[in-house]
Amino acid sequence: MTQQTSKQQSPETPDKRLNGVDLEILQGTVQAIAADPELGKCRFRATNAWHGGTDNRTTVKGFYGAKQEIPHQQPFTMRADEPPLLAGGDEGANPVEYLLGALAACVTTSMVAHAAVRGIPIDSLESELEGDIDMNGFLGLSDSTPKGYTHIRVRFRVGTDADNLEQLKELSAFSPVLNTLTHGTNVSIDIEQI
Amino acid sequence: MTQQTSKQQSPETPDKRLNGVDLEILQGTVQAIAADPELGKCRFRATNAWHGGTDNRTTVKGFYGAKQEIPHQQPFTMRADEPPLLAGGDEGANPVEYLLGALAACVTTSMVAHAAVRGIPIDSLESELEGDIDMNGFLGLSDSTPKGYTHIRVRFRVGTDADNLEQLKELSAFSPVLNTLTHGTNVSIDIEQI
Repeated sequence: MTQQTSKQQSPETPDKRLNGVDLEILQGTVQAIAADPELGKCRFRATNAWHGGTDNRTTVKGFYGAKQEIPHQQPFTMRADEPPLLAGGDEGANPVEYLLGALAACVTTSMVAHAAVRGIPIDSLESELEGDIDMNGFLGLSDSTPKGYTHIRVRFRVGTDADNLEQLKELSAFSPVLNTLTHGTNVSIDIEQI
Repeated sequence: MTQQTSKQQSPETPDKRLNGVDLEILQGTVQAIAADPELGKCRFRATNAWHGGTDNRTTVKGFYGAKQEIPHQQPFTMRADEPPLLAGGDEGANPVEYLLGALAACVTTSMVAHAAVRGIPIDSLESELEGDIDMNGFLGLSDSTPKGYTHIRVRFRVGTDADNLEQLKELSAFSPVLNTLTHGTNVSIDIEQI
């Protein structure tokens, strides 16, 4: 965890780094997109390969943003599997657990970065998440049971002045994954034969 | 990839394994939940620890289901980071890429498992995903721009008889992550001081 002083700083005179975030880089990105909003349009990408049964691997190599293809410095792989209860080999987190990971990571990063820009120091940050899914929906046993998460609870514990807590909670609302989950999104699925 | 014959099988006389899925186990779970729907109520869990800046790690250790705590055989960790454009060190996939991974994995597993139960053989399966996010929303540069994904496109390529494609597409609708994304879910966020 990065250590920061707990003194609130003025947004007008930030350090170059706060909460471990390089403000010069982040504010450079913000200013560039403010000047040319087209730079903000991103397309994130992933590929997935099935390895039999409930075992499959997602790879991400890069994305489109700032009007260009931006490769990651290395590809990242996520192996997903299911526990034995769902006929899997338990070789990886399962897809709905990956969803919780995406949410945890996104709200954390959004809070930390937006706090840094506003001069709010965070010494430490951790979270616990729990989400409810009734398998009667997924398994097709009940048409009236939702198939996805019906409720996800996130509990953050933050090392910061108590005065900052309410504002940090408000900053969580910037998280793209949180917004995707609470507002929903359009998903198109196409299938073709190999 | 598992190799299966392409012959459509009767749902009444399935092999013990199809598409790499152990049907005896899966159908045992289905029958148990059908007899006692309370067994289907699951609570999935994750914890996340911030490592400074945009670097954070999610850990999943187990979940609640079938009226009991079910530990994974080992904990799974997902490291998330951001690319340099967003002031990160690019040490992991970013949170919105994890969301694509969750979706890819979930639709894949849902399709494979539901196809197995229905006697539809799948020889191979891969997918490509692409999702649109306009950073003007996340960065607070435009109040009218959505902060999350506005559209995600998934393209599957499946090694199976052409006759099966339409039904496989319909089976994708069982995916819990897909349903969470398209219908949205409730997310509660609490913040307390460490």
